[in-house]
Amino acid sequence: MKILISNVRAVLLDEADTVLSGAFVAVEDGKIASVGTQRPAGPFDREIDGKDNVLMPGFVNAHTHVPMTAMRGYGDGNNLQDWLEKFIFPTEDRWDDRAVACCADLGLAEMIASGVTCIADMYMRTHVVAQRVAESGISANLSCGGVLFSDAFDPETDHDCVALRELTRDWHGYNGGQILVDASIHGEYTSRAEMWEWVTAYAKEHGLGMHVHISETRAEHEACKARHGGLTPIQTLNQYGVWDVRAIAAHCVWTTPEDWAIMAEKGVSAIHNPMSNLKLGSGIAPVSAMAKAGVNVALGTDGVSSNNCTDLFGDLKLAAILQNGANCDPLALLPAQALRMATENGGKALGRKTGRIQAGYDADLILVDFQALNLTPCHDVISNLVYAAHGSNVVMNMARGKVIYQNGEFFTIDIDRVKREVRDYALPLLFQN
Amino acid sequence: MKILISNVRAVLLDEADTVLSGAFVAVEDGKIASVGTQRPAGPFDREIDGKDNVLMPGFVNAHTHVPMTAMRGYGDGNNLQDWLEKFIFPTEDRWDDRAVACCADLGLAEMIASGVTCIADMYMRTHVVAQRVAESGISANLSCGGVLFSDAFDPETDHDCVALRELTRDWHGYNGGQILVDASIHGEYTSRAEMWEWVTAYAKEHGLGMHVHISETRAEHEACKARHGGLTPIQTLNQYGVWDVRAIAAHCVWTTPEDWAIMAEKGVSAIHNPMSNLKLGSGIAPVSAMAKAGVNVALGTDGVSSNNCTDLFGDLKLAAILQNGANCDPLALLPAQALRMATENGGKALGRKTGRIQAGYDADLILVDFQALNLTPCHDVISNLVYAAHGSNVVMNMARGKVIYQNGEFFTIDIDRVKREVRDYALPLLFQN
Repeated sequence: MKILISNVRAVLLDEADTVLSGAFVAVEDGKIASVGTQRPAGPFDREIDGKDNVLMPGFVNAHTHVPMTAMRGYGDGNNLQDWLEKFIFPTEDRWDDRAVACCADLGLAEMIASGVTCIADMYMRTHVVAQRVAESGISANLSCGGVLFSDAFDPETDHDCVALRELTRDWHGYNGGQILVDASIHGEYTSRAEMWEWVTAYAKEHGLGMHVHISETRAEHEACKARHGGLTPIQTLNQYGVWDVRAIAAHCVWTTPEDWAIMAEKGVSAIHNPMSNLKLGSGIAPVSAMAKAGVNVALGTDGVSSNNCTDLFGDLKLAAILQNGANCDPLALLPAQALRMATENGGKALGRKTGRIQAGYDADLILVDFQALNLTPCHDVISNLVYAAHGSNVVMNMARGKVIYQNGEFFTIDIDRVKREVRDYALPLLFQN
Repeated sequence: MKILISNVRAVLLDEADTVLSGAFVAVEDGKIASVGTQRPAGPFDREIDGKDNVLMPGFVNAHTHVPMTAMRGYGDGNNLQDWLEKFIFPTEDRWDDRAVACCADLGLAEMIASGVTCIADMYMRTHVVAQRVAESGISANLSCGGVLFSDAFDPETDHDCVALRELTRDWHGYNGGQILVDASIHGEYTSRAEMWEWVTAYAKEHGLGMHVHISETRAEHEACKARHGGLTPIQTLNQYGVWDVRAIAAHCVWTTPEDWAIMAEKGVSAIHNPMSNLKLGSGIAPVSAMAKAGVNVALGTDGVSSNNCTDLFGDLKLAAILQNGANCDPLALLPAQALRMATENGGKALGRKTGRIQAGYDADLILVDFQALNLTPCHDVISNLVYAAHGSNVVMNMARGKVIYQNGEFFTIDIDRVKREVRDYALPLLFQN
């Protein structure tokens, strides 16, 4: 399938932050084949007229928990402990595969409609999530979120170790890398050294990345230091070689300059989740300073239960303005830098060549309606995308070279069936037992 | 005109935060006539089926500069001084009435489509803004933003004093209060005591409110203290009786507990503009603490040039989560409290009975599409409105009992003409001379 997107303003997100007017972007075999202002030689199977629209790389939502879409707003207005113990955990005990499937579909649909083409997800029943992602057409790094609370640890029988092995066997590298499996430690505070060692060894052996929650709350960060002789979560896990593989560290709100030095040296990406961090009262991650220290910073929405939506345009704007406000510096985080966090930096974090409009990159592309009122007038395309756009302005989502959404219509998800299944099956199972 | 909105979930925003299912809301002569779960006696000229939707009070955008919509993103990425001096001020010198008219229309349309039914605006050529507001159908408190830089001050000839007198004469109380004129001091740092005294006396004489920028930046706040023997802007203006009339103080980022005591005692409302304050690096206004201290806190978007959009859902969500994050307390600002800031508190600030669904209140009402993906599922209507909804979910805007927008269609604004006029007249005038 060869597709040509023509007559479009294209935000390349190259080093020069080029916005190319009258651009032609050719797509073939899931990759961007060419970018330029001359119509390339055809024939093409399909041409998409980009007039009035802006083309940009699709978003990488680099930390989320997609089935939690079912819990939107559930237990809001309670303190963190009550919220987790009285609302979230009891619900999570009730999942079955069918409920995970439709709730994952619902979450994927919301993300696709608002411009996400790639995610890093951590949840349970991940084999079901993998199946849904595969059908949706977007790319994903999937992980199981390994925990270890019991005294005994036998990797042969441990639930999360078994799940990781099965997920890796069945899904890692699926469809030319559409799905990659990441090893995972849910967090320092929810597991122990035996697991860290096993998971790290497994990741190295199988060429997997690593996905970990890090220093989300001050309490978690301080408790780790108390347990580990003053070492932070980043430093503690570093002692076990966890950062020797490509790794993404979600949140990083309370990380220190010493942590950033390790992250920069080891290539650990920080995934910033500003909506979730503010809503849950976790704090404000110092991402401008982290970026200056050489850390690759990408963006995530976190789960819907703590956001409460997955429109990455929201987190993008917030990321950009929050650093300005927290540092009392209107230049603390510039729009193009924020946009890169939401695209190419996410690609880097996930070990993928996505997030630029450049030949050879994955054809993960979205069209944004620049005739929309909230984008009129346009003095600066990137500024409008970062500060004024919203998911509802997305009129086309192309993932891996395939148009999966256009003008409100989903081509890989039967949205009416999904909504019905969520309403009639998942919600009664999860909440009304 | 008698209108019935039927079969709707209605967020009353009463003291109990009632969400009334299967509600019937009757509207007559611009006011809410009745609210209940029984169909009221007719006949009605029109019935609007609210099935699948949520009805809530329209938003009050309590601090904005609507013609600045023309400057969306203009000069972004520059420091505050350069931004003002090289971009905003030179542009502002070029306005004429025709440009103000179409840019005001553009801004009003964006607000109407995202659920705003009432604004407090401060800008120049305010008689033109008044005309556009009158035609749009929403309510507005309008002010001219008085400044005084010259040594001499003669209220008979001073431009802003003349403008205020003419605006008051021509527009104050228009159409049963659709337009109210507020006296205005742009800010302590842009004027002097002679003007404060005259404007205050004028406001008292004519029963006007007062609209002032207060302590937006630390530099402004500290410079005032240096000029006025340690007194803050709130305290300085208090010495001149400025707070003896109903007053709205925009921003209040650097206000102190002593300021809040004055504001609570005098009934000065603080208008929180979280998007603008973060983006411009002004800081984070301590609005949870202000509210606890008894200050009426309402919400505004500020001008588009510093936001860069006027979707109050964005500022609503940010207001709610920012206090949690800044205070590391997930309960610092609860969803219902935030929603009240965006509605009834704004009404109080502007001296209006709007922001509740209750008989006798202005029929300022919006319908929100709760079948939208980003609002599915719904465990808590108020939580969904505050944390997950967006302006694009608004499917109907009724201002003062008249439907002015429905399903993408504007009934009081010719949006195609406005966009053309902005493109062909205003933008060339303002930016390409």
